[in-house]
Amino acid sequence: MARWIWKFGEFEIYHNLLLHNRRTQYGWPSPPVWKVCAPESCVRFAREVPGPGGTIRVWAKGDFAVTVWRGYEKTEYGGQHEIALGDGPMRVTVTVSNRESFPCLYVDGDLQTDESWTADDLAGDPAPADSCAWFDAPEKSPEVFPFAYAPVECVRRERLEGGALLDFGRETFARTAFRFSGKGDHVLRFGESREEAMSPEWCVIRRTVRGADRAKFEAQAFRYIFVDDPGAKVTAEYEYLPLSYRGAFRCDEDIVNRVWDTAAYTFHLNSREFFLDGIKRDRWVWSGDAYQSLFVNRYLFLDRELERRTLIALAGKPPFEAHINGIVDYTFYWMIGLYEYYETYGDADLLRRIFPQARRIMDFCRSRADADGFVRGKQRDWVFIDWAPMDRAGALCGEQVLFARALEAYGSICALLGEDSRGAAEQARALQAAVLERFWDDEKGAFVDSYESGKRFVSRHSNILAYLFLPMDDARKTSLYAHAILDDSVPQITTPYFKFYENLVHCEAGSDAGLERSIREYFGGMLRLGATTLYEQFDPNETGPERYAMYGHPFEKSLCHAWSCNPIYLLGRYRAGVRRTGVGYQTFEVAPRLGDLKRFDCTVPLPAGEVRVRMDGERLSVLATAPGGTLVFGGQRLPLQAGQEVSVAVR
Amino acid sequence: MARWIWKFGEFEIYHNLLLHNRRTQYGWPSPPVWKVCAPESCVRFAREVPGPGGTIRVWAKGDFAVTVWRGYEKTEYGGQHEIALGDGPMRVTVTVSNRESFPCLYVDGDLQTDESWTADDLAGDPAPADSCAWFDAPEKSPEVFPFAYAPVECVRRERLEGGALLDFGRETFARTAFRFSGKGDHVLRFGESREEAMSPEWCVIRRTVRGADRAKFEAQAFRYIFVDDPGAKVTAEYEYLPLSYRGAFRCDEDIVNRVWDTAAYTFHLNSREFFLDGIKRDRWVWSGDAYQSLFVNRYLFLDRELERRTLIALAGKPPFEAHINGIVDYTFYWMIGLYEYYETYGDADLLRRIFPQARRIMDFCRSRADADGFVRGKQRDWVFIDWAPMDRAGALCGEQVLFARALEAYGSICALLGEDSRGAAEQARALQAAVLERFWDDEKGAFVDSYESGKRFVSRHSNILAYLFLPMDDARKTSLYAHAILDDSVPQITTPYFKFYENLVHCEAGSDAGLERSIREYFGGMLRLGATTLYEQFDPNETGPERYAMYGHPFEKSLCHAWSCNPIYLLGRYRAGVRRTGVGYQTFEVAPRLGDLKRFDCTVPLPAGEVRVRMDGERLSVLATAPGGTLVFGGQRLPLQAGQEVSVAVR
Repeated sequence: MARWIWKFGEFEIYHNLLLHNRRTQYGWPSPPVWKVCAPESCVRFAREVPGPGGTIRVWAKGDFAVTVWRGYEKTEYGGQHEIALGDGPMRVTVTVSNRESFPCLYVDGDLQTDESWTADDLAGDPAPADSCAWFDAPEKSPEVFPFAYAPVECVRRERLEGGALLDFGRETFARTAFRFSGKGDHVLRFGESREEAMSPEWCVIRRTVRGADRAKFEAQAFRYIFVDDPGAKVTAEYEYLPLSYRGAFRCDEDIVNRVWDTAAYTFHLNSREFFLDGIKRDRWVWSGDAYQSLFVNRYLFLDRELERRTLIALAGKPPFEAHINGIVDYTFYWMIGLYEYYETYGDADLLRRIFPQARRIMDFCRSRADADGFVRGKQRDWVFIDWAPMDRAGALCGEQVLFARALEAYGSICALLGEDSRGAAEQARALQAAVLERFWDDEKGAFVDSYESGKRFVSRHSNILAYLFLPMDDARKTSLYAHAILDDSVPQITTPYFKFYENLVHCEAGSDAGLERSIREYFGGMLRLGATTLYEQFDPNETGPERYAMYGHPFEKSLCHAWSCNPIYLLGRYRAGVRRTGVGYQTFEVAPRLGDLKRFDCTVPLPAGEVRVRMDGERLSVLATAPGGTLVFGGQRLPLQAGQEVSVAVR
Repeated sequence: MARWIWKFGEFEIYHNLLLHNRRTQYGWPSPPVWKVCAPESCVRFAREVPGPGGTIRVWAKGDFAVTVWRGYEKTEYGGQHEIALGDGPMRVTVTVSNRESFPCLYVDGDLQTDESWTADDLAGDPAPADSCAWFDAPEKSPEVFPFAYAPVECVRRERLEGGALLDFGRETFARTAFRFSGKGDHVLRFGESREEAMSPEWCVIRRTVRGADRAKFEAQAFRYIFVDDPGAKVTAEYEYLPLSYRGAFRCDEDIVNRVWDTAAYTFHLNSREFFLDGIKRDRWVWSGDAYQSLFVNRYLFLDRELERRTLIALAGKPPFEAHINGIVDYTFYWMIGLYEYYETYGDADLLRRIFPQARRIMDFCRSRADADGFVRGKQRDWVFIDWAPMDRAGALCGEQVLFARALEAYGSICALLGEDSRGAAEQARALQAAVLERFWDDEKGAFVDSYESGKRFVSRHSNILAYLFLPMDDARKTSLYAHAILDDSVPQITTPYFKFYENLVHCEAGSDAGLERSIREYFGGMLRLGATTLYEQFDPNETGPERYAMYGHPFEKSLCHAWSCNPIYLLGRYRAGVRRTGVGYQTFEVAPRLGDLKRFDCTVPLPAGEVRVRMDGERLSVLATAPGGTLVFGGQRLPLQAGQEVSVAVR
């Protein structure tokens, strides 16, 4: 079966480039704020053919030239579509040049394009070409991302301020078509909230039409559309990536179910070419956000391809001269996420393909470490961790923890591939020891942000990251949990982004009682105020339009944000208790913790099946459709046979 | 005066990309065979404004967003055209995103774009933006290379084989427009020779028109056009870079004058965005060819910008993973040429701008040297030197000579810029000593190609390169000249490309008597057979259409090839005897050698004027319009005053 092929990475680089150039704000294009790589303009594809070649048909995106080599003897076919290759052995090369999108090739007939072909940029080493099952016919072009479309209906239309306000009932991401009452100039405003759509000054996504009686727009985020022509006919089509909802959750509490469903919808809206941060703004790929999306994806879609595309797009291309998204910690999350991707899917092929870039990325990180092994922000490095007050003087504790974990991940990748890591594992261990030595404060019983400032400031952030990513003894864990997490005098986390990590710590520490409460209160609070997708951030005290404001502007808050979808992960991971223990889920554990739900029924996807965990208040029943599972409950470990339900009494 | 600005290199990268994608052969596109870099898709321009900003007007190629920073406080203006900047001090940044061509920016009003702005790719260091005097108004777009156009007329039209053959009298490079007798399918063939235009099978440049009554084509090389419609109306416009013919030459011999004029025209046709090899095929930028063009340019146009553009385009962008044009020696010529460019124009600014890439290039070369310091072809390296039999076993002598010279040039560049060369000069000296030790053969009295094969093969090539680029004592020079150049048993040079270097050796050795003879016979021979531009190669024994054949195809020889234009250099340099001795021609020498011409009148350009050398058989008169010259003649050294002619008796 022939497929379109391309040089590894170019498909993601191209769609990442399109994606990053689609953002608009207040009617103006809003170009990227970090380097977005462009595809190669010319790629050479090659395939050794041991025997007779037969006849091939060639399609390419771009100009192409076919050359057949027999030793040093070459036969040139230019851009002919149908070619009789003649006797082998031979080497078939097709050079494709494309300045508009990216070079890709489709050959069928007696020889077919697939990953047995190599690709190179006429400078670097040839490497196996990449492909995707979606693009398996000449007319299925990899230039067009294969989104699906479904009509969405306006549920309410009002005449307002000389125009019409359309309400589509819930947040969507849809392409739109307008037919106006007549030729003229028109203003259109796409609002996540009614207030936003009605704000001529602050509506973020808006379009102007000049002297036309109709207009079409590529997909945008909105629930409301205001059009200044009350007679305008408006149609909208939801644009989405068809993904299977493989995870599921139902319990006895409506609000928890609704949060789960809303999280799933929110997450789906943000799961497109790659994992996005939010669909209105920025609609970009942020490594820290994407890392959290990996957690959710594994309990909802378990879509390997989407993770793979995101990791490739974030890695970019050489030269690697700036941190991913400009943020030091985001580069570390990328490396950690790459190794966890391998652990999840057992996909060593991606590690092998991406390794040259992974090495460049780690070389870059290592080159920026100081003589004492710590990373401190160099020029143009954003030492982010979170929007929160931390003592950022000199080396920041949380950053070192992530650096060490990234080094560890890189060392594991190298070991797996048989590549020389130049002592990454040893460097990781030395760095981890140095963190314990320099940042641990015995008197505080926790890590301080900075050992250089003398302020001994304890933040939740550094301690959360240490809890999750730094190997340490249980005494320290218990101590920092008490002194940095449970202690209310330590400033609270204010972003859902970092709240997720804090929740992980609670759950890992066995204190997951707050899980349902936070779902009911924080996320439930959004829904009670009318949210149809989960917000970037929410303060239950803000109940008016001020809840849409962020970054100093009235409507810049994203009302559909991926990092708020983690209830899906937390419920699947800690209530149903499903956890991968072996690479690629060859083994997994089901260790439910019942929390304060009376009943629940949770399905968690596995690569080769699923595991369903039901608790009806009296019995816990677990059914896995793939082998390798162990039920851990009530002090017992029971092997799970594929297809055989195991049922135990709850108390 | 405002100018369009861009990130340094991007203008050249963009036009180089267009150029390399324009080649066609036998009706098919013919994509590049080496890596051709693509422009950045997004560039950030910035300017510090110390005082009040006033009002600016902004034009950009691509989407743009203006942001003004006052400390960490930012004001966003999106893509507004006219902006009141308000009070300073401030930092104005404009991010421009452009996937079609390359990001560039034009600002006028109270703040104007020029090279005081910086540009960066959102990852690397900001560096001074680049600009060009051509693009000094909003409507003068750097996306369009500003060629000039002039109509060229068909001088003869014949009805032939059901169509019309048009002869434009001489080789040209012209865009064409066709108006056919009616709507239909048409075939057009552009021939450098009549035979080529009439060959349906082997005409290299051809076009097919389907179902149209008119057609237009971008500029192509041709003298003849065959169109299959005898009634077709054809118009053509010569496309050229307006360049001043600052050098001139006239003598008493018509054939020498005609060769000079034809060389000038040939060279002009190949002097466009960059120095091309030939205008029909390949129309690409080859570093070895371009290096020779530098010599000719300095005695004809002395166009600094064209040299600068060529050096930038050849350097490409990081990562540097393959030799320039895939050829080891071509990378070395680039480095040598870069330093000679500096010596010629005193332009340290280009050295400074291009240094990061020059360092990458030299790092790449050094990384591929073996433990003994010699370079041997690694995978995908083409050790070219010339199309000629050489003993290429192991390290090739000529290649080491060029490597050492490139290291020396790089060392000089580093010294000039105060950059650490990591011992390049020392490495060059050690390598030169090793070449003398390993390749010099006392018995042969010359360098052997390989010391590893045991064959002791003496080629002209290695000895010519050693003579020109390797420091050695006079005894060795005299010996190798006698044993490798004057000895007819050493295989002859067969390409005009290397013939130029051999001629340089003759001239440097004081044996320039053959200069006029080679002009009369070799180049004159082409003209006598009807050439209107100088061929890539010429064998006086081939007088029929076989003289158009090359590379195994009847018309693949380029009939208009830059490397054949060196008579311009040789006459100016050795007859008129003009030679730069100080950086930027602060000093220069005029040391005429009269050869066997009875009279000549030669003008050689200087950056700030020209020097005219006239010899009428009795007196030699020299007039320089710029200071710094010394006349060296008849054993005397006479200072030249700007504007004062010095005249001496010839014998």
